[in-house]
Amino acid sequence: MKLLSFRVNNKNKYGLVTTDGVTDLQTLFPQYDSLLEFIPHLYLLDTLPPSAKKANYSFDEIVFLPVITDPKKIICAGVNYRDKDVTCNERPSNPVLFIRFADSQTGHLAPLLKPECSNEFDYEGEMALVIGRRGRNIPQQEALQYVAGYSCYMDGSVRDWQHACFTGGKNWPATGGFGPWLVTADDIPDPQNLNITTRLNGQTVQQDNTNCMVHSIAELIAYISTFSALSPGDVILTGTPGGIGKKRTPPLFMRPGDRVEVEIEQIGCLINTVYSDAAVSR
Amino acid sequence: MKLLSFRVNNKNKYGLVTTDGVTDLQTLFPQYDSLLEFIPHLYLLDTLPPSAKKANYSFDEIVFLPVITDPKKIICAGVNYRDKDVTCNERPSNPVLFIRFADSQTGHLAPLLKPECSNEFDYEGEMALVIGRRGRNIPQQEALQYVAGYSCYMDGSVRDWQHACFTGGKNWPATGGFGPWLVTADDIPDPQNLNITTRLNGQTVQQDNTNCMVHSIAELIAYISTFSALSPGDVILTGTPGGIGKKRTPPLFMRPGDRVEVEIEQIGCLINTVYSDAAVSR
Repeated sequence: MKLLSFRVNNKNKYGLVTTDGVTDLQTLFPQYDSLLEFIPHLYLLDTLPPSAKKANYSFDEIVFLPVITDPKKIICAGVNYRDKDVTCNERPSNPVLFIRFADSQTGHLAPLLKPECSNEFDYEGEMALVIGRRGRNIPQQEALQYVAGYSCYMDGSVRDWQHACFTGGKNWPATGGFGPWLVTADDIPDPQNLNITTRLNGQTVQQDNTNCMVHSIAELIAYISTFSALSPGDVILTGTPGGIGKKRTPPLFMRPGDRVEVEIEQIGCLINTVYSDAAVSR
Repeated sequence: MKLLSFRVNNKNKYGLVTTDGVTDLQTLFPQYDSLLEFIPHLYLLDTLPPSAKKANYSFDEIVFLPVITDPKKIICAGVNYRDKDVTCNERPSNPVLFIRFADSQTGHLAPLLKPECSNEFDYEGEMALVIGRRGRNIPQQEALQYVAGYSCYMDGSVRDWQHACFTGGKNWPATGGFGPWLVTADDIPDPQNLNITTRLNGQTVQQDNTNCMVHSIAELIAYISTFSALSPGDVILTGTPGGIGKKRTPPLFMRPGDRVEVEIEQIGCLINTVYSDAAVSR
């Protein structure tokens, strides 16, 4: 199943993706106000008769929101794909982790905002996962049972503000594209074997497979939950493959008008167009 | 004025500190559910007759909670005091910033939890500030007008989990002591000239003055608000003076049974006792 957050008639809602549009789940389950609140109750979808799963809105009628609009925690792994250009990859013993705030996110097809003051707005295509149930000290071998589903993420990075820690480079408004939707874990038999591709203006700039992660999804969940409890709706970004713009010669950064896509096999394709933040009201 | 969050009769409340206890503000202003929600409306305190400001509870009756129990953003500056041991301090051009989650906090007199798996649980006494009104791109010269007030913070740090980025070392449950209360900004004429002292079992381990910050409070607010909007109840930790345990020879770390205090002139003294997290239920 594919679940999403969207906006229609000036109201934020959550829904189910059907072949011809979106079923409005919020009308069916008004006791839950957001996809984050609904996630612990996904089993309720099994109680719906097929006739209830008709499209209430076409895709043209909705505005895509970040899959989880207001996560309490967005924990991001740095890099995390094996470097294909070196013969020996020494495995780092611990993931490098940084944090995004919820208000740095944006949805599928929505503007990705390049700070006017930055000349180094870089792309990082990633697989995101959303936590489905609460856990602390989660054993690695049980970790995937805590995943509600998977999505695509454009971890847009303001390199010239990414000093020492990542905080200042990763928290500008509307730099984190998240979508188009969440594919529930039962529809992804092996999340650790999916092709992931980032394209900038149609040209492939990152291409890898999730089987090349340095720290697997299960390792990340186990590691993070050692120090911080995970709850339904929390988001983990699993890191980006090689090919980022900052490490190219010459460097390749995103500019207003650019179109950036993150496509992951079995999940979908997240598309954003870059705008200058000077062109939108703050 | 001194404001605080507390727990009494199994209910979280917020209040005003009087000479002999705590006035229950939540009963007076039931439309606001927490100190975070009340902060934009501090002017309402001026409408209270003096008779309303009587103590409803003695200090013995309440449990202190983190001053802001559930901040949306806790942004922390690394170090940020000039090193007294070197003759020339080259000023770093940008603050190093990391993030704490709200659930890593604990209140005055509450246990500070040392992870059982860590041998390097370190102290960092800091001044915290709480944002009073929303702002983005706040000019440095106006920045102090955005501060609701100041408090003490024990930024407990799990050094052996503080890899590359700070995330894993700063987000264990109940490692961030925050209290005892918020002193409103009008009661602190010059926040940039306050003695700050950290004591471990009565012995002074950090001692400095806020006039030795590398990046001033106003600079931090201006810098952070360039990339991320600040809102009422957001918390900024202004960094710690020299003297941390990890940099001593031999190192000095906190152990169960230790008592740690952060005292800041004109604000108060935050006291916590260290417990092993294995001794409490998770």
